[in-house]
Amino acid sequence: MLYITRRETFNAAHRLYREDYDDQTNLEIFGKCSNPNWHGHNYILYVTVAGEVNPETGFILNLKTLSQIIQDTIIAKIDHKNINLEVDFMKGKMASTEILTIVIWEQLEDEIKKLGARLFSVKLYETENNFVEYKGEKTNTTI
Amino acid sequence: MLYITRRETFNAAHRLYREDYDDQTNLEIFGKCSNPNWHGHNYILYVTVAGEVNPETGFILNLKTLSQIIQDTIIAKIDHKNINLEVDFMKGKMASTEILTIVIWEQLEDEIKKLGARLFSVKLYETENNFVEYKGEKTNTTI
Amino acid sequence: MLYITRRETFNAAHRLYREDYDDQTNLEIFGKCSNPNWHGHNYILYVTVAGEVNPETGFILNLKTLSQIIQDTIIAKIDHKNINLEVDFMKGKMASTEILTIVIWEQLEDEIKKLGARLFSVKLYETENNFVEYKGEKTNTTI
Amino acid sequence: MLYITRRETFNAAHRLYREDYDDQTNLEIFGKCSNPNWHGHNYILYVTVAGEVNPETGFILNLKTLSQIIQDTIIAKIDHKNINLEVDFMKGKMASTEILTIVIWEQLEDEIKKLGARLFSVKLYETENNFVEYKGEKTNTTI
Amino acid sequence: MLYITRRETFNAAHRLYREDYDDQTNLEIFGKCSNPNWHGHNYILYVTVAGEVNPETGFILNLKTLSQIIQDTIIAKIDHKNINLEVDFMKGKMASTEILTIVIWEQLEDEIKKLGARLFSVKLYETENNFVEYKGEKTNTTI
Amino acid sequence: MLYITRRETFNAAHRLYREDYDDQTNLEIFGKCSNPNWHGHNYILYVTVAGEVNPETGFILNLKTLSQIIQDTIIAKIDHKNINLEVDFMKGKMASTEILTIVIWEQLEDEIKKLGARLFSVKLYETENNFVEYKGEKTNTTI
Repeated sequence: MLYITRRETFNAAHRLYREDYDDQTNLEIFGKCSNPNWHGHNYILYVTVAGEVNPETGFILNLKTLSQIIQDTIIAKIDHKNINLEVDFMKGKMASTEILTIVIWEQLEDEIKKLGARLFSVKLYETENNFVEYKGEKTNTTI
Repeated sequence: MLYITRRETFNAAHRLYREDYDDQTNLEIFGKCSNPNWHGHNYILYVTVAGEVNPETGFILNLKTLSQIIQDTIIAKIDHKNINLEVDFMKGKMASTEILTIVIWEQLEDEIKKLGARLFSVKLYETENNFVEYKGEKTNTTI
Repeated sequence: MLYITRRETFNAAHRLYREDYDDQTNLEIFGKCSNPNWHGHNYILYVTVAGEVNPETGFILNLKTLSQIIQDTIIAKIDHKNINLEVDFMKGKMASTEILTIVIWEQLEDEIKKLGARLFSVKLYETENNFVEYKGEKTNTTI
Repeated sequence: MLYITRRETFNAAHRLYREDYDDQTNLEIFGKCSNPNWHGHNYILYVTVAGEVNPETGFILNLKTLSQIIQDTIIAKIDHKNINLEVDFMKGKMASTEILTIVIWEQLEDEIKKLGARLFSVKLYETENNFVEYKGEKTNTTI
Repeated sequence: MLYITRRETFNAAHRLYREDYDDQTNLEIFGKCSNPNWHGHNYILYVTVAGEVNPETGFILNLKTLSQIIQDTIIAKIDHKNINLEVDFMKGKMASTEILTIVIWEQLEDEIKKLGARLFSVKLYETENNFVEYKGEKTNTTI
Repeated sequence: MLYITRRETFNAAHRLYREDYDDQTNLEIFGKCSNPNWHGHNYILYVTVAGEVNPETGFILNLKTLSQIIQDTIIAKIDHKNINLEVDFMKGKMASTEILTIVIWEQLEDEIKKLGARLFSVKLYETENNFVEYKGEKTNTTI
């Protein structure tokens, strides 16, 4: 069993807030990330796939294919977009790094299964100081 | 003559567009950066100051003071903000990295002169692949 | 279950040696790291916390709170200090990266439990070429 | 139980191809990596060892020794070499990052056992965007 | 006057040697870089262009255009290639980082002039420890 | 004219203070950097040499030679040392990054001249956020 990782990047705007909170409460809970005029990040995404080496090719899977799947499924829909307003797979969800990481996992999981491999980890850097990793361990909470 | 550099970071939303263009023209000229719903970046700012070493302290200037000036003059006004809508020193200007770099220079120049040193360079990374540097060389163009 | 990581940095002096060894033995075992006049590093600390997403906030925990805990519990006590001489939680211990990593874990574990989350990993870079990770797996050895 | 990691680098040429394929098939499967005139990379290698802290030294193992083992066993044989043509431990194997990672593990495993520690992970970066990790989980496939 | 920089990368094989030297002399002068079986690098290329801001667009030039020029003129011809054998603009030249940097400048200079800007610097990283910069300052030597 | 840069690193302890100041004054002027028990850094040193390409070798100078000179002249004397107490070329000088940068220049200048090249810049990173560059522009001040 081997783990292969592909790094991709995207730039997007977002805001942390709840519609059912007033501005003051949003500010208290989400701080400057609740700015109603948005802010943004250069996100760095690491997608790790687990699998066995195909002895014919020496590959777990073709990295160009993996990169293309991430491109089509995630990057094309989120790069240079507003995560709260424009990204179909984030509709109705909070635009925190935590939830974005889980949702990216959900978008990729089946696509990678089709390649005969298994999604192992999605790691998302919001800044050089903060990142979130999800390994598909389901929680009881609905997000 | 020595050159000392301080690195600071900020996260902000922006959009490249002209109000006097329609959406289609904005898209042609500015590409996905013209998205009306904004996108954003983790900007990295390098401020370089030139000066002589003070033989009493071994410093060109106190880096804590330099950092504080950048904080008060730039970061506090732009971090987690929308560059087009909320940043006083960018009011009425296009939010390109080029113009932002020049305007940051203009904000810092006099503050650093007051410290007895000279602003030498402002370098601004929009992404790991793109950055702009300004050294105060005036152009004829009005921005 | 998600994993969120916060990166913090500190600069400190230290020395690897045993008081019950003479200088020659210290030099043989610890090499140039045993220099009696100290040397130092820019340490980079990654603290990873495991938890479920709070559906109300979209957070595992508030990163500002996590950062403040690391600041109060670790950074304030070790940054710009001599690890062997001045850091209360390292008193009587060897200032190796291994032991420092374990001790940082011990300082943080309960503080993070109070937030309703679980400390998952402490990773400490001494240089760009060397780092240690501890995940709370107890050993039989007393350090 | 602690995990200590040493980072080493090497520069090498390689090519992805099968001798039993014609050039056209190699191009289809391996893309530009099949170039018969070779291309190359600055590989970055992370070797992670698991072990308990020796209370006498505060070390899991002496990092200088670990670095020397990686140097003698891997770097001296592969740095500034052609991986397909010149590296004894890659003879007859495909020069993919996946297989190289597994083979580096096999070269190091016993050497590290002799130090009283356990090889935990070999991670190999081919570029900043692609890397492979192996943790010794045996597959049924012969490579 | 502003300076805008675009970063691009390519992976290539090369060898340092002179045909009129025997292997022993090549080894003495060029060390392990003279390996007749080639080695390779992940090169990082920084192209800096000087110009004035176009007040209409806020740009010095369109970065997408600059990136495309570097892609067409340099990357497409050198990425995943053997620099000594396959790169037209390096034909008959030594494949040192110094000469490669100068030749990349020569390939780009006129293309960037056509955009109404001026090539200011070409910086080429061979490894994280070694890089060469050329600013078009002509030498008397013919390379 | 070309510019070639070599990166080297060293780890050292230091302290910012004046013997003719009391502890309180040292604390006011130098902040936590005045800690009498020392602190330390992973310094990163970039040495840039200017020269013409030797058409025989394709080199400005042999990088292995440049690296060896930096090793012998600087690194061997400062790595894992206390800059205030043990480094001959810093004797009687303040251990600020500014002064250390100038003094490293002075140590290297003649050695590089002997190679038929010219020292162009010494850049020294104290942390990822602070660095100083010196290009040999003499000041009137005696340090």
